[in-house]
Amino acid sequence: MLRPLCVIPALLACAAALRAEDGSVAWLRYTALGETAARGYRLAVPAVVVAAGAAAPIDSAQQELIRGIRGMLGRTLRVEAHVPRESAIVIGTLDEIQKAAPQFGLSAKLEPDGFWLKTITEGGVPYIVVTAEDGRGVLYGAFALLRKIALGEAVDRLDERQTPYAPVRWVNQWDNLDGSMERGYGGPSIFWEGGHVRQDLSRVSEYGRLLASLGINGCSINNVNADPQLLDSDFAAQIARIAAAFRPWGVQVAVSVDFGSPKSIGGLDTFDPVDPKVAAWWKAKAEELYRAVPDLGGFVLKADSEGRAGPSTYGRTHADAANVVARALKTHGGLLFYRGFVYDHHMDWRNPKNDRARAAYDNFHPLDGRFDDNVIVQIKNGPIDFQVREPASPVFGALERTNEAAELQITQEYMGQARFLVFLAPMWKETLDFDLGPGTVKALAAGKTFHRPTGGFVGVANVGLDENWTGNHLSQANLYGFGRLAWNPDLSAPRIAEEWTRLTFGGDPKVLETVSVLLLKSWRTYENYTGPLGLQGLTDIVGNHYGVSVEASERNGWGQWHRADQTGVGMDRTMATGTGYIGQYSPAVAKVFESLEDCPDDLVLFMHHVPYTYSLHSGKTVIQSIYDLHYEGEQAAESYIGDWKGIAGRIDDRRYREVLAQLEYQAGQAEVWRDAVSNWFFRESRIPDAKSRVGNHPGRVEAEAMMLEGYTAVDVHPWEAASGGKAVSCPITQCAASTRYNGAPGWYTLRIQYFDQNNGTARYKLRVGDQVVDEWVAAAHVPSAKIDGSTSARRTVGGIALRAGDSIRVEGMPDGGETAAFDYIEILPSEN
Amino acid sequence: MLRPLCVIPALLACAAALRAEDGSVAWLRYTALGETAARGYRLAVPAVVVAAGAAAPIDSAQQELIRGIRGMLGRTLRVEAHVPRESAIVIGTLDEIQKAAPQFGLSAKLEPDGFWLKTITEGGVPYIVVTAEDGRGVLYGAFALLRKIALGEAVDRLDERQTPYAPVRWVNQWDNLDGSMERGYGGPSIFWEGGHVRQDLSRVSEYGRLLASLGINGCSINNVNADPQLLDSDFAAQIARIAAAFRPWGVQVAVSVDFGSPKSIGGLDTFDPVDPKVAAWWKAKAEELYRAVPDLGGFVLKADSEGRAGPSTYGRTHADAANVVARALKTHGGLLFYRGFVYDHHMDWRNPKNDRARAAYDNFHPLDGRFDDNVIVQIKNGPIDFQVREPASPVFGALERTNEAAELQITQEYMGQARFLVFLAPMWKETLDFDLGPGTVKALAAGKTFHRPTGGFVGVANVGLDENWTGNHLSQANLYGFGRLAWNPDLSAPRIAEEWTRLTFGGDPKVLETVSVLLLKSWRTYENYTGPLGLQGLTDIVGNHYGVSVEASERNGWGQWHRADQTGVGMDRTMATGTGYIGQYSPAVAKVFESLEDCPDDLVLFMHHVPYTYSLHSGKTVIQSIYDLHYEGEQAAESYIGDWKGIAGRIDDRRYREVLAQLEYQAGQAEVWRDAVSNWFFRESRIPDAKSRVGNHPGRVEAEAMMLEGYTAVDVHPWEAASGGKAVSCPITQCAASTRYNGAPGWYTLRIQYFDQNNGTARYKLRVGDQVVDEWVAAAHVPSAKIDGSTSARRTVGGIALRAGDSIRVEGMPDGGETAAFDYIEILPSEN
Repeated sequence: MLRPLCVIPALLACAAALRAEDGSVAWLRYTALGETAARGYRLAVPAVVVAAGAAAPIDSAQQELIRGIRGMLGRTLRVEAHVPRESAIVIGTLDEIQKAAPQFGLSAKLEPDGFWLKTITEGGVPYIVVTAEDGRGVLYGAFALLRKIALGEAVDRLDERQTPYAPVRWVNQWDNLDGSMERGYGGPSIFWEGGHVRQDLSRVSEYGRLLASLGINGCSINNVNADPQLLDSDFAAQIARIAAAFRPWGVQVAVSVDFGSPKSIGGLDTFDPVDPKVAAWWKAKAEELYRAVPDLGGFVLKADSEGRAGPSTYGRTHADAANVVARALKTHGGLLFYRGFVYDHHMDWRNPKNDRARAAYDNFHPLDGRFDDNVIVQIKNGPIDFQVREPASPVFGALERTNEAAELQITQEYMGQARFLVFLAPMWKETLDFDLGPGTVKALAAGKTFHRPTGGFVGVANVGLDENWTGNHLSQANLYGFGRLAWNPDLSAPRIAEEWTRLTFGGDPKVLETVSVLLLKSWRTYENYTGPLGLQGLTDIVGNHYGVSVEASERNGWGQWHRADQTGVGMDRTMATGTGYIGQYSPAVAKVFESLEDCPDDLVLFMHHVPYTYSLHSGKTVIQSIYDLHYEGEQAAESYIGDWKGIAGRIDDRRYREVLAQLEYQAGQAEVWRDAVSNWFFRESRIPDAKSRVGNHPGRVEAEAMMLEGYTAVDVHPWEAASGGKAVSCPITQCAASTRYNGAPGWYTLRIQYFDQNNGTARYKLRVGDQVVDEWVAAAHVPSAKIDGSTSARRTVGGIALRAGDSIRVEGMPDGGETAAFDYIEILPSEN
Repeated sequence: MLRPLCVIPALLACAAALRAEDGSVAWLRYTALGETAARGYRLAVPAVVVAAGAAAPIDSAQQELIRGIRGMLGRTLRVEAHVPRESAIVIGTLDEIQKAAPQFGLSAKLEPDGFWLKTITEGGVPYIVVTAEDGRGVLYGAFALLRKIALGEAVDRLDERQTPYAPVRWVNQWDNLDGSMERGYGGPSIFWEGGHVRQDLSRVSEYGRLLASLGINGCSINNVNADPQLLDSDFAAQIARIAAAFRPWGVQVAVSVDFGSPKSIGGLDTFDPVDPKVAAWWKAKAEELYRAVPDLGGFVLKADSEGRAGPSTYGRTHADAANVVARALKTHGGLLFYRGFVYDHHMDWRNPKNDRARAAYDNFHPLDGRFDDNVIVQIKNGPIDFQVREPASPVFGALERTNEAAELQITQEYMGQARFLVFLAPMWKETLDFDLGPGTVKALAAGKTFHRPTGGFVGVANVGLDENWTGNHLSQANLYGFGRLAWNPDLSAPRIAEEWTRLTFGGDPKVLETVSVLLLKSWRTYENYTGPLGLQGLTDIVGNHYGVSVEASERNGWGQWHRADQTGVGMDRTMATGTGYIGQYSPAVAKVFESLEDCPDDLVLFMHHVPYTYSLHSGKTVIQSIYDLHYEGEQAAESYIGDWKGIAGRIDDRRYREVLAQLEYQAGQAEVWRDAVSNWFFRESRIPDAKSRVGNHPGRVEAEAMMLEGYTAVDVHPWEAASGGKAVSCPITQCAASTRYNGAPGWYTLRIQYFDQNNGTARYKLRVGDQVVDEWVAAAHVPSAKIDGSTSARRTVGGIALRAGDSIRVEGMPDGGETAAFDYIEILPSEN
């Protein structure tokens, strides 16, 4: 093998040519433009780049321009110290450019972080000026200029100013100090390992670059469920190393803190926020950190929530808690993000007036005006917790004298994690554009409505060390989408989807169309096959938040109840008869939600309890809609496979194959979900599917009905996770299950629904007669060690010729805790 | 990351989908056909396969049919024990099929290893019969049927008989017992490791499958320069393991033996072939081996050549030597391959009558008729040793009563090793089709001309453990080409090139055209930029047989002399005035070669010594032809890059990138060769290039002429391997060389010709002004630790804007024995 002649990836043209498309460069691929496009841009883009001033972000901007132009146009910009007499890209803050090129006569009033791309012709020579009030803005301008080229937009005669919609555009990473991550699906932490900051922070620097390309300016680096240890003095220098990796990209570091720290690690006998000793402790701690990281962004604080220490211990308020910490940060310019995600998780489910959705409003509305100006109350988009469909949280509209930030979830907890394609920008758009009365969520969160000093958007990102950051290629679109919306929430979801697709997979029209459409319908698809009509909460909410478990939300204190029973379903949150949650909205909004006639179908079961026979706006009953939507969702997920296959050969084959495998897996899971939810509601309601699909699966043979050799039938929990409520499991070293085929001769696809747990790698063989027609290993890593909906996986074997009398036989060889269990086989006529 | 759901590659459809195109499946990819083609074949290909008989090759045939049909059509053939009433593929020997399906009434006389693909309609049902005299033929028939489908040929109404052209279709592997390989460029041995047979022989089995797909039926598994140890008794069981891995694919194992073994390891005091003790020893040794490997193919023996022990020690003949071993094999049905590659490598170069080319004929012609019938004299295609252009060896025509085999070189010793694209089928075709008088080489080698009991073709293959077997993707075409020609030397090179391309890279018409044409012109290109006109021998023949070294062949005993001096060039091999070599040919052939007028330009300097001013058939002088052909060759190699880029996106990107890197490297080496040979002949002849190119390189700046900081100028050996005969080398930890640019402003490509040795990984930076515009690491593994033609490598940096006054600076950081040397920089106007 000829060894590659170059190995340093950063600068080199040939590195890009040699590198596999592993997803590591995400949307910043800078691949060579087609010859026609390149020719055009080679005329429009100067040969020289001049940086006025040398602050870190400006140097990054210059390097990025060199890298991007080199990649896309095959040219290396000349770095010159002074503005030449020839055409040049001139970058720098307004002040610096006015000094370096007074002849440009530049003058403008720009907002912090905003930028101005401007073509100036001086002495007959055109210059592209990338300028801003501050260095970070210049960096954002450079990325914007490169994105224009990558998207095929004109860059001659530029005069474009952009101002970020909000000052706060942050991500939170829920990384634990041991390197694990809460709700992280993209590998181990890029920051932490074994209780300390990783030696190699190159991925942090690369992450900073990705964030900067979107205009994200802050990142908290540890779990909101904070380890108090983080405030131990020996961490300051480590945090400073992360800050140093981020700083060239204008990303400020923040840390999550534990409210009990003054006592647990500080040596005090209290953490009472109004105790002066406590205030002094926070002050000293902040000073220590700011000595190490002078540009620290601030702290994130989750208090009195899900078992975290909080002010309630001393009968104090959230404002007391927030302010004592915020005041320690204030002199340093730091912000305190106080999470609004506060609720009682030991609520009595028997009380029909109890409602977790009310909690944030009930907790924070009374405190409006009592938070210091450097406190930001960080509010999840919906009143529950990152469910597939929630109304906008009423808290956004309820705080007029308090800074807010909207917390949006980029990582896909409850949303298929890294395994399903669920593009979240359309969902965020619905929330951000929702008018709560005083204003839209985006305007409220950004502080525009009530003219707050700060505010904005926080995304829970949770990228990890996986090559592709997010555990799969398509989930990168959510990070991209969050960043773009945080910068400009007026962008449309289709625009974002197409931008991302073009930057990530290239500009082939069929690819653009296919991938954009897949992205844009994916949220609805996922909602349909999991929990439509505002049902939500059908994942295993007391476990892995992934697989199906319809009753996991019921009859416990967590309050994600859908209250389905034999006659009806839905949480009555009306003012008239329910929990009164709807009353937290402005009258105009409340009126719509309160009225069963006006309430949108998508949220009807979130707001109302109705009989299964209740007729929706669609004209269908609730129960029939549940059936139909689940079948629609499953069919849509199945259709993704064919859609994706349509772009074979139009993108690199590595990502093609990896995404295809992901979509095939998702289609199998969609069928599990469809059957589980449909069967559950059928058993509960006893109302049959008008289309006779539910409980009726032509070609399906239950494992427990096959002739078993060694295999034993077992009850599955929850019962709906397996067809017929049962699977077969092998308690010995090898088992078999067989059935005899008695249908027409022809070509068939066999599907085996088996259970691929994470505590072993069982092996399977499929035989027709004596012939092994397939064999596979159950080596997937889904978050469950049980026979349940999360582990239910589908093996599809096409092109099998069956003849009457054939024996079809599944052989299983358990391994570790994995018992080679399976649920059923399906024998489906095949077009092949 | 979603983990792949299947990990066993053999059987599984999804494995193929998930596997990267690493080249490991070579031409047996069986990728899914396009939907239209697949539909057609799904009608023509039955659902059932029946194997009559279960001998190993027939079972392999059945498995291969299942695998191939599954891959291409997405269907799994049903294995049935008896011929069904429905359409089926029925495979088996004629005897077995007559028993299993007497109703077919099959009857034919087939040659060993030949096969018959026949559609039989019985009771209105069509059957595809794959039959042969023996199991191996059935296996070949199965591969042929699959190849037809992969190539898009019709498979309905089949009636195709194929008979191999010759019984011997072998490969030799020159693997050493320590796992290294003589002239192996595809990684370590698949057979050996640390002095014994490898534990894991899965690659041997895969290799057997590749060989079987071509009809290759034998493989010797150790270096012809044989380690006597191999005949130690404890190796028999190990060799049996290799034989077991090959056996399902019908590939017989052979071993190379050392003629001195009876003495060196046998405990005798002699290895004299006429000594009965020696004969008894060989007999006992053969018996021992055949007990372990009853179907052993035989032995390969290199004696009295290049220092090997041989019969001359005792004044015996090659026939004595061959026969004593052959008789030990005879009762077991084994063959002895006695290599004709015998010559004196201590010849006096001052004697103009001495000629290595004469040696094989002189040695073997007198012995014709004295070799036993199970001896095969294995004769290299040409009289020297795998040079880029040789006449067909006269020995083929000189042995009427002796079995022959033509030894062709698949591994690319002297032919760019694994680094250059050189497709050898066109060269082999020229040799095989050459009419020596009594017959063509192919007919003579196959034993057809003189009705010999056996004969055929032996390829020196030397595949290794590299994923792609041959160290690069394109060299696989040589293994494919050898196998196809060994089966049927009447196939044309274009047909083979297109078959291979379609099977290896798919059927896109532009890919077919581009890759086929690249293959077909590659030999001529390589000849042109290395040694045209029969010059040959310009690699470093006393060293690595790779890089340029014009005089390496001169003034030593190896006899690869081209005898270039100040007035002329070429070996006078005429009968009239030269060595008389030409007299070894039949009169008709000799007449053409003897006559300077009739001798083809391609061989003129092989046959004649002429003045540089001699005018060729082309109308050009010899010297101008040398210049022109080297420039043509270099330009052709350069054009490969653009040709290859034209198929970007039409094949998988991994192989696209890997081949592109290889072709870029080759283009750089072609320039080194062009300059070295042209400059050498210019210095020697003092005749300038009519086109003023030689010695005149606009834009080239010699390193030794730059301003040196730490770098020191060094003489390069041979002088022609470096521009100006000198390079600069860094004797300290870091050096720099700079020059000032004073040309017109514009876009330029900079090329740095540096030396990438295999004894270190030096680093380089290229600066324009203060700006680092490129950096790279010299990490290639070429077979040299010196500053010479082999290590001379080119770094191309496009898209550089230069302005008058710019400093261009190369910085080198040595590592190990590699001194960050470089030869020159070139500043070339760029279209960019």
